[in-house]
Amino acid sequence: MYREKIKVLDCTIRDGGLINNHDFDIRFVREVYKALSAAGVDYMEFGYKNSRKLFSAKEFGKWKFCDDEDINKVIDGVESQTKISVMVDVGRVDIEDVKPAQESPVDMIRVASYAKDIDKAIFLVNHFAEKGYETTVNIMAISRTLDTELNEALVQLEKESKATVIYIVDSFGALYQETTEFLVKKYKGILKTKEVGMHGHNHQQLAFGNTIEAIIHDANFVDGTIYGIGRAAGNCPLELLIGFLKNPKFDIRPILEVISKEFIPLRNKIEWGYIIPYAITGMLDEHPRTAMALRKSDKKEDYREFFESLTAPGLE
Amino acid sequence: MYREKIKVLDCTIRDGGLINNHDFDIRFVREVYKALSAAGVDYMEFGYKNSRKLFSAKEFGKWKFCDDEDINKVIDGVESQTKISVMVDVGRVDIEDVKPAQESPVDMIRVASYAKDIDKAIFLVNHFAEKGYETTVNIMAISRTLDTELNEALVQLEKESKATVIYIVDSFGALYQETTEFLVKKYKGILKTKEVGMHGHNHQQLAFGNTIEAIIHDANFVDGTIYGIGRAAGNCPLELLIGFLKNPKFDIRPILEVISKEFIPLRNKIEWGYIIPYAITGMLDEHPRTAMALRKSDKKEDYREFFESLTAPGLE
Repeated sequence: MYREKIKVLDCTIRDGGLINNHDFDIRFVREVYKALSAAGVDYMEFGYKNSRKLFSAKEFGKWKFCDDEDINKVIDGVESQTKISVMVDVGRVDIEDVKPAQESPVDMIRVASYAKDIDKAIFLVNHFAEKGYETTVNIMAISRTLDTELNEALVQLEKESKATVIYIVDSFGALYQETTEFLVKKYKGILKTKEVGMHGHNHQQLAFGNTIEAIIHDANFVDGTIYGIGRAAGNCPLELLIGFLKNPKFDIRPILEVISKEFIPLRNKIEWGYIIPYAITGMLDEHPRTAMALRKSDKKEDYREFFESLTAPGLE
Repeated sequence: MYREKIKVLDCTIRDGGLINNHDFDIRFVREVYKALSAAGVDYMEFGYKNSRKLFSAKEFGKWKFCDDEDINKVIDGVESQTKISVMVDVGRVDIEDVKPAQESPVDMIRVASYAKDIDKAIFLVNHFAEKGYETTVNIMAISRTLDTELNEALVQLEKESKATVIYIVDSFGALYQETTEFLVKKYKGILKTKEVGMHGHNHQQLAFGNTIEAIIHDANFVDGTIYGIGRAAGNCPLELLIGFLKNPKFDIRPILEVISKEFIPLRNKIEWGYIIPYAITGMLDEHPRTAMALRKSDKKEDYREFFESLTAPGLE
């Protein structure tokens, strides 16, 4: 029997945008929107709502800013029950850019925050909730967050925030099942009035397994991306998630079709997925930036040397 | 704290051999043996001990037969604590080919069997155990084995066989954590005098996650292959397993090095890993042979059509 409360959020364009400067064209994004709509996916995340004062439209594509007009071009005329989400980073959004929900195609705003910035995140989600949006707080770099700091953040989120979902974000792909279970249980223990969400990264091929683990322990919001696209090793493959979930509203076939038509050609142009340097940063619980730099260098396949560079002594 | 009883078996050459007709040259196998020895891996499996009456040496490479002389060429002069394993299929071995253990470089013989052939498997393992080998029985296609049949096989293995390890073999890559947990607990409940082993397949990117799950529930023998090489989507990547296990005897660096030098070039010549048709057969709990055939056809990227061909009605 399926659990109706489970909601699937696709962040293909948002997390995938991290490897192409958010520069997907309208046609491509529309194909993704059509596929997700036909597949019965609950939410589609388009990108970030960043301040144009901080980032240049010359350097970044339109999904770095997610103007309502661009979103409207994508969704115009497509029959869909899929809600639309955008992400906001603490310190990078101009809240005046965000119209009231009833004037916007956007349904949900997710605020990405480190635990230490939780007061800023609460200010933002409450502001957006008052404007009529569904809201979440996504706590990044969870594997490197001290337990006392996380506990305090969760207590504050429960007491002070209007967010309806609080996410575990395994930014470094460092969680295993046991650590995922520990975190979901901690979240559930403190967040009595909110749902728990799971956003995995696939550095150690555990994004799907950890997402299943989170579902087992009652997380009801789960993120995926088509063919696992996303920064570094990418995310939980949406097709696997849809294959696993039993809700009859989901249909995997449109996802398989868009992978064949759009994502296989794209993967030949840009790189993501299981690649050893990302596995290494995952098992060392490090940000993948060193691995991403390595992949752009002429030492891209020198794995042993890369591992040794990250584990050299000298920090005590 | 690490669990000393956990033993890692690498089956790179054996399971990898399924995608190149067991035709690795001595130099390559020797590089693998050196890397595994330096990494502290407990066992290395070379291939199958098949009857030359059933298979032609013209069609298959030497690791389809695993003559002691070929194994000796690989290991000669290499300092190593790594034990040597070969696999035997029920109905394909000529037991007269197998010398007593003290005359052979082989330490362990693993018998691969379906649950329905368990009497034949028990005959074989007992024969090999009497010749002085460590022995295991690997129950294949576990996800499609009826519970009553599996229970009976496990009771027989406990009572009648000299095998010291009984494996769960997820041939179709169809297990999830909950089904893995169910099986390990079942095995542990019946096999009071034996260890439980786990051999995953990676069709749904769960080989590593399911292997961790098996370890959590007290499986002590776990299989991996370098860079996940193996039939179809391949196996649990050995490098992830070594990165996860805490026993200080393991050293990941030689594995990383041999991936750079040998497996990246090899992967450019032969295909394995996460590929959508294998994900589809995994989620449908099917043998990957249809997907393997698809990958050799001109419809190799037509995923939706492939999915529909496997799910067409008409069986009642």
